[in-house]
Amino acid sequence: MTRTYDDGLGEVADVVERARRAGPELADAGRERRARLLETMAAHLDRSRVELVATAAAETALAPDVLDAEVTRTADQLRMFADVVREGSYLEATVDSAPAGDVLRWLRPLGPVAVFGASNFPFAYGVAGGDTASALAAGCPVVAKEHPSHPRTCRAVLTALRTAAEEAGFSPDVIGMVSGFEAGGQLVTHPAVTAVGFTGSVGGGRALFDLCAARPEPIPFYGELGSVNPAVVLPHAARTPDAVLEPLVTSMLTRGGQVCTKAGLIFLPDDADQLADQLRQRMADAPHPVLLNESITAAYLAGTAQRAALDGVEVRCGDGAAAGDDARGPVAPVLLATTVAGLLADANAELRQECFGPYAVLVRYRSVAELRTALAALPSSLVAGVYATDDDLPDARDVLPVLVDRAGRVVWNQPTSGLRVGWATQHGGGYPASTAAGTTSVGATAIRRWLRPSALQNWPAALLPAELRDAVGGAEPGLPVRRDGQLHLPEAV
Amino acid sequence: MTRTYDDGLGEVADVVERARRAGPELADAGRERRARLLETMAAHLDRSRVELVATAAAETALAPDVLDAEVTRTADQLRMFADVVREGSYLEATVDSAPAGDVLRWLRPLGPVAVFGASNFPFAYGVAGGDTASALAAGCPVVAKEHPSHPRTCRAVLTALRTAAEEAGFSPDVIGMVSGFEAGGQLVTHPAVTAVGFTGSVGGGRALFDLCAARPEPIPFYGELGSVNPAVVLPHAARTPDAVLEPLVTSMLTRGGQVCTKAGLIFLPDDADQLADQLRQRMADAPHPVLLNESITAAYLAGTAQRAALDGVEVRCGDGAAAGDDARGPVAPVLLATTVAGLLADANAELRQECFGPYAVLVRYRSVAELRTALAALPSSLVAGVYATDDDLPDARDVLPVLVDRAGRVVWNQPTSGLRVGWATQHGGGYPASTAAGTTSVGATAIRRWLRPSALQNWPAALLPAELRDAVGGAEPGLPVRRDGQLHLPEAV
Repeated sequence: MTRTYDDGLGEVADVVERARRAGPELADAGRERRARLLETMAAHLDRSRVELVATAAAETALAPDVLDAEVTRTADQLRMFADVVREGSYLEATVDSAPAGDVLRWLRPLGPVAVFGASNFPFAYGVAGGDTASALAAGCPVVAKEHPSHPRTCRAVLTALRTAAEEAGFSPDVIGMVSGFEAGGQLVTHPAVTAVGFTGSVGGGRALFDLCAARPEPIPFYGELGSVNPAVVLPHAARTPDAVLEPLVTSMLTRGGQVCTKAGLIFLPDDADQLADQLRQRMADAPHPVLLNESITAAYLAGTAQRAALDGVEVRCGDGAAAGDDARGPVAPVLLATTVAGLLADANAELRQECFGPYAVLVRYRSVAELRTALAALPSSLVAGVYATDDDLPDARDVLPVLVDRAGRVVWNQPTSGLRVGWATQHGGGYPASTAAGTTSVGATAIRRWLRPSALQNWPAALLPAELRDAVGGAEPGLPVRRDGQLHLPEAV
Repeated sequence: MTRTYDDGLGEVADVVERARRAGPELADAGRERRARLLETMAAHLDRSRVELVATAAAETALAPDVLDAEVTRTADQLRMFADVVREGSYLEATVDSAPAGDVLRWLRPLGPVAVFGASNFPFAYGVAGGDTASALAAGCPVVAKEHPSHPRTCRAVLTALRTAAEEAGFSPDVIGMVSGFEAGGQLVTHPAVTAVGFTGSVGGGRALFDLCAARPEPIPFYGELGSVNPAVVLPHAARTPDAVLEPLVTSMLTRGGQVCTKAGLIFLPDDADQLADQLRQRMADAPHPVLLNESITAAYLAGTAQRAALDGVEVRCGDGAAAGDDARGPVAPVLLATTVAGLLADANAELRQECFGPYAVLVRYRSVAELRTALAALPSSLVAGVYATDDDLPDARDVLPVLVDRAGRVVWNQPTSGLRVGWATQHGGGYPASTAAGTTSVGATAIRRWLRPSALQNWPAALLPAELRDAVGGAEPGLPVRRDGQLHLPEAV
């Protein structure tokens, strides 16, 4: 691969070094300039929308209207982080005053970070996705890993971001990219890389996590690896299947079941035959999607067949075989059914693991106590859904603590598969949903992952960083500051 | 070891199980009850002060007045976390409202956590220290590891805390303890343990970090391992040695040089002979301390002798031999001197590493540019000191960015060895100063390490956890809440 660096791609050492050099300007640009950088990047995504959507549609088999909406979400996410940067709370500016000299504490960017995007959201979890947007907002230059499943999309996005960076007066090297499997390992072990954002599989993610932990100086690995996402239909709700059916089907089948928030385990009372049959019917009638890439297709075919053959598992719909003969499908939806005992059997661990594609398992429970036992035994998930009527409130109260323990977000009577991006967004959970349970990979507070605290004690005001001079009572208002334990908000403009 | 569990000690599986069972009550107690728990614990430390100080003085050889002040600091720290819990910002309560249903996000306790205290602060970094106080404040039960260097102190503190917990209406098992080297490894790999706080050596800390990272479900390891702590005397300040001498000597010799914030590398201009000689004199005149334990004493004697023999290193004071013949000293202070080239030589890595005891290295620099190069090449530290006059301001401006990059806290014209505990406290840094650069182990925000975010979407108000009902506009005021991006403070009471 011979290539000039002008497109932002190159060898790992070169791309990381360029990111490192672009770092101080990005970190010290001040909040307003960094906010404008993010907004300029959003504008460039909007401007390149037609090309981006066409390129991604060809590479991913996702529908153009779905991808168009994803470009909007991705651009909006960059703009949201511009708001987060301007608002300034994220700095956690804190002053403890004392006759012996004040102590000032605030959060600073870590330095260059690596971002590994996902196959299923080429924009929102891609080169310009939430990891990149939050890292740039924090002041960290980003080195993305090109996704082998949609390389042309990655490059088109990279070009848009680099062009925007230059237009906003920054080095284009605030964002760069490396390519190839080996480059991924080199990237996370490079001494100048300070943290990693990752969205992908348990296998690949754990391997990179292990590399980060084994470094001479370990760095944080913020990985979203896999999530089985239980959805619970409580007894009274199960008797009104029409209210429950649409959000459940949406949760199972959005993007051909290739979303990390897919409801993979649908818990139903064991007498909910009508709802179970309606779910079977909807799966049987669902379109057969072409999947994102060959490895997801192969994993879908093998994974559904393997699960269908487990003891205590019935096949309700689909036989796991591809309807087409292309290596990416189209594939037939698969709905399995089991009991709590079947789900929790030692030999049936696969049932408790994520499988991308139009696949789910109905789990019949005999009592809410059994339901709680089952939920408590599941690996952590990104999201859980509860479907309930008013008559289910006492049971919901029983189930809520275990759901909150097992999932980063718990949804009431809505599909789990959508994720609103805002200040209250939580997209994370325990392992394997996330390798860093204390964080979120989406939403305003995702910026916290790329920051570290610093304190200055007894420093002369003239030497304080510009952002901190505001905190100490300088000319520029606009920064929430905690002084001697008391939080103060800036006056409204 | 046969022992009833009533004293809080036991086998790992038993102690962790008891902590796990005590968890829900602690987590759901509400902020006011948890604040009172911390205050009751503080009161019991005060009440046991005479016994605690006598026990620790016998075990550690630290002076009773020093230990008495440490009990005060430790009790005050518990009270500070009561304030933090009452204030409520730490919950990060956030509401995004929408016609389709609000999303609420807040921080919840992780579950049982393990705490490994340090040898050098038997109270402030011990069983009732900052890790325990912040974890209990968060709502996490604690299993402490007994320190082999002061086991009786650990048990006396444990008894005080358990008695206080019962008095405050909680299970005493909110705090328990395990004993012995093997128990440490079992503790951090126990499936129910959700995070680890550690203060100690690089060797022991890294081994436990590696165990945490290798778990099937990895957990965070918040470790403070080692810190060499540079102190920089800028050229003009070096010409007024009297102003500089006291804070430098304090930074080098507090507690016999057995503090993690000890200034280990003193950077002086190469013409600062007068200051260098005064430092040598003060070290030569300093008392010979008895050290904390035999392994620190052995490491001091071997470490100073090894460093003294390195190429490019001169011995200014002390020969590294113990003045007494006890296995814990008293030991003679050791002051070495070298150049920047000597400090950075590949073969001299030990010079760049922490060594507990009354030991420091003078590093002579020829220019501020060379000083910057030296500082940038050091491992990360907890703290760095700068000694400067007004005439040094331009040089200080040059040096500040590299110091902020290399140390979690940077101090102007004061000893580095003291740490004020408050809202703006930062005690952490890059590896090996900390294994988690984004955190602090001391100060109000240390609570953040033991929390993870959760979100509820579209939930009926009746089912929200009590702490969140406040956030949604319930009867109890007092909680800062971000609504639709806008931070709102509770009305003053």
